[in-house]
Amino acid sequence: MSTMTSSETSTDSAEASGEDTGEFALIARMAARLKGGLPEGVVGIGDDCAALPLSGGGVQLLTCDVMVDGRHFKSGATGMADVGWRVATASVSDICACGGLPGYALVSLVVPPHQTTDSLEALYEGLAEAEADYGFRVIGGNVSGGALLSVDMFMLGETPRFVSRGGARPGDRIAVGGTLGDSAAGLALLESATGAASGTDELVRRHRRPRAEVALVPLIQRVASSAIDISDGLSAELHHLAQASGARMDIQGALLPLSQPLTAFAQARGESPLRWALHGGEDYRLLFTFPPQHLGDIGASPVTVIGEVGEGSGVFLDGAPLPRGGWDHLAPERSDREP
Amino acid sequence: MSTMTSSETSTDSAEASGEDTGEFALIARMAARLKGGLPEGVVGIGDDCAALPLSGGGVQLLTCDVMVDGRHFKSGATGMADVGWRVATASVSDICACGGLPGYALVSLVVPPHQTTDSLEALYEGLAEAEADYGFRVIGGNVSGGALLSVDMFMLGETPRFVSRGGARPGDRIAVGGTLGDSAAGLALLESATGAASGTDELVRRHRRPRAEVALVPLIQRVASSAIDISDGLSAELHHLAQASGARMDIQGALLPLSQPLTAFAQARGESPLRWALHGGEDYRLLFTFPPQHLGDIGASPVTVIGEVGEGSGVFLDGAPLPRGGWDHLAPERSDREP
Repeated sequence: MSTMTSSETSTDSAEASGEDTGEFALIARMAARLKGGLPEGVVGIGDDCAALPLSGGGVQLLTCDVMVDGRHFKSGATGMADVGWRVATASVSDICACGGLPGYALVSLVVPPHQTTDSLEALYEGLAEAEADYGFRVIGGNVSGGALLSVDMFMLGETPRFVSRGGARPGDRIAVGGTLGDSAAGLALLESATGAASGTDELVRRHRRPRAEVALVPLIQRVASSAIDISDGLSAELHHLAQASGARMDIQGALLPLSQPLTAFAQARGESPLRWALHGGEDYRLLFTFPPQHLGDIGASPVTVIGEVGEGSGVFLDGAPLPRGGWDHLAPERSDREP
Repeated sequence: MSTMTSSETSTDSAEASGEDTGEFALIARMAARLKGGLPEGVVGIGDDCAALPLSGGGVQLLTCDVMVDGRHFKSGATGMADVGWRVATASVSDICACGGLPGYALVSLVVPPHQTTDSLEALYEGLAEAEADYGFRVIGGNVSGGALLSVDMFMLGETPRFVSRGGARPGDRIAVGGTLGDSAAGLALLESATGAASGTDELVRRHRRPRAEVALVPLIQRVASSAIDISDGLSAELHHLAQASGARMDIQGALLPLSQPLTAFAQARGESPLRWALHGGEDYRLLFTFPPQHLGDIGASPVTVIGEVGEGSGVFLDGAPLPRGGWDHLAPERSDREP
């Protein structure tokens, strides 16, 4: 992982992280500075999206995500079309995590003087592919000079019902879409240039072209008591849900959905695939809770029940406390947090 | 001016700039890639703001502006509260230029590992001052690590009527709020550390704390046929209006509103203050056109009529063609474009 970590998805709440210089502490400080009551129905700092009530009914969702050269990609080494796709995916995924679908976006580019035209064309191509695939439209933005390439995306979406991080109740089940840890393993493969094991192409593809789970949005709308997207790793996101909901999250390792390529990859390294599934970032899967009466509703969906919400606080794996192993993006050294 | 230039205000249209690597060419390329019809009432790339029709009537405005260390400010030398204020001012000014008032904002921060807590507190303080002064609310954002500090602001506003760049008609008058060129002169003073002439404090203040002209918004709503804000200098913005409106802009040098401190500053350097007024950036004044029957309406307002819209194209000062002297922010060397 080293320096290539996901940007924290937007508007994350203040956390008692105990790390003064960490991302969450910075957000807490910003939230405290920019404090004060918001009008009825407005959701401010503290969830995947901010939200504004629409006069015609429903809720407008707002989020932003950035990719910075040297941090989220490596100019020259990373395909720029992938950068465009990934930054759009990160924003779309935030919108989906609040139960919504994306609508419009602005793109703010900082471009170094010697950036090649071809690389920018590729970036735009990746954005255009994401537009077509996810069904949103870029309607504006900004271009500025600067020493480092960065792509900041601001996205609007809509939902009939805002699904927050804070609605999980004891007895609810915990579910996740797709499989876990593939993107992080793909990045490790890209960085190590080892691999060649069967299925590694699929892991690399899951890193380069993760896909936001727009197809799960109707289900989330119908059943979810709380939801979040997995940008920083399952364990980190479970901690967000637990804290925002004032509840305890119990998951079982044997239930975590693992892809065959991830299992093979971990086996080849003599590792447990669980570490990747628990702490790997940029999966952009949806993690949500739902009341048990909806267990029948989700039967046909590509989601996996991985645990249950309980009374109390904290996150537990097979009964033992699970520390937040995701990446705090401002920590200067994150190798100690690698999966 | 050197490397510290204003970020181009959002969603600028493609221009026949003839500079392949320039900002406007990049925007043109992005617009071409992200092409395709937009729904009725949606305004895409090409104005100060993008716009979405609101179901309850009126229009939602969207814009973004970024400040990057080494480009728009100098970390360590520039007061961080000023950076927060200026990035908010740039966005608010875009909203005003479309006839609207700001409502909500997201802030996307990229923070280097060793950024001091105090400097970030100061940045938030500047943002909070701008919130209170302009009457918008920060309701979300994103914090990411990266090698260079940058502050990207996404802002939403509302207007009953979208005032575009493209509505100027022959016979309309051209007007501007406040005085011109003060901010650019203030930056020159900060960079040269000369000065001490009387009034220089006021110029420096105008650079450090420019003020978006929210008070002019009701007038713009009532009378403007087209409008834009002055972020890149009067000459550049006149060219935008001329091109978007398909009309000719004729201004008179003797009519340009100059502050006493700017006149004294230019005199002390043996220069004409007109160069600063024509090409100085980051004034955040509103430049607009209006039909002559409204001349009576604007009598009491702090605006100055500086010229008239004509048939044809291009921008003319006292009858002679006025080249666009503003800054194209991606040009690697801009000292040749200094006022």
